[in-house]
Amino acid sequence: MMSDNPIGADNQQESLSPEWVVGFVDGEGCFFVGVNRQPTMKVGWQVLPEFRVVQHQRDVALLEQLREFFGCGQITVNHGDRKELRIRGLKELSERVVPFFKANPLRTVKRSSFDCFAEVIRIMQRGDHLTSEGLTRIRELAGRMNRGSQNPQRPYAGSPT
Amino acid sequence: MMSDNPIGADNQQESLSPEWVVGFVDGEGCFFVGVNRQPTMKVGWQVLPEFRVVQHQRDVALLEQLREFFGCGQITVNHGDRKELRIRGLKELSERVVPFFKANPLRTVKRSSFDCFAEVIRIMQRGDHLTSEGLTRIRELAGRMNRGSQNPQRPYAGSPT
Repeated sequence: MMSDNPIGADNQQESLSPEWVVGFVDGEGCFFVGVNRQPTMKVGWQVLPEFRVVQHQRDVALLEQLREFFGCGQITVNHGDRKELRIRGLKELSERVVPFFKANPLRTVKRSSFDCFAEVIRIMQRGDHLTSEGLTRIRELAGRMNRGSQNPQRPYAGSPT
Repeated sequence: MMSDNPIGADNQQESLSPEWVVGFVDGEGCFFVGVNRQPTMKVGWQVLPEFRVVQHQRDVALLEQLREFFGCGQITVNHGDRKELRIRGLKELSERVVPFFKANPLRTVKRSSFDCFAEVIRIMQRGDHLTSEGLTRIRELAGRMNRGSQNPQRPYAGSPT
């Protein structure tokens, strides 16, 4: 079982395994749905789903590996010396992120947050976020997800009241 | 790729995979070496290595699975509504924790923290933490590990100056 590994932590190039990604996202990932006032839109609110992973900038190479793993996403500054991988597009979320976590389920309670997230994505794929019924359901799901303390650093600020 | 999983997140009983554990510990784990003044000891300082994983109490079942995975450890209150799995014994650390992360390397910079931790364990196994040379080396390693921002919530308070 003991084996030395010659690759330095800063230069870990081996590709990521699905199980590692699930474990890491169980720890560090975040599923978030913003519902923001947008008067120019017919329904009055814009729905912005987002999957993100935040890390200290020292581990930006790992965020790049995650971006490669999912085949999409942007890496930007999160706050101070922290960077984030952010996946926002409906196409990327519905074709890459949601199917991955359906096939490789999370193990923490973050999974129930993901289930809400996946339902929001389904509603948006049907275009129902542009109806008041769909929006009501999304608000309910978003409130349920974003209120959880899995997002303690970023409370759900955009919730319509 | 899409497959529904009937097991609820709160009741995930499937055993953990090594890669998931590595990913989760890359996110949530912490290797820590306390060096505390202990006048009753000949060398004057006590060395307390510790591996821990902190989670909200909602996910205490997962901490129990981790304890089962490593075959050792105690689950206690960390702070407020957070619990921790803590593995402290030299035997458990040297026979379970260190060999596991040698065989299954971490991918974040937490790995360099683990490398220092593993060296501290080796020094202690030889009994050299009871010599002033060994203790000097341990202080150096502990300072290098514990100063890293992988432990931002718990700064290295016990360092001899």
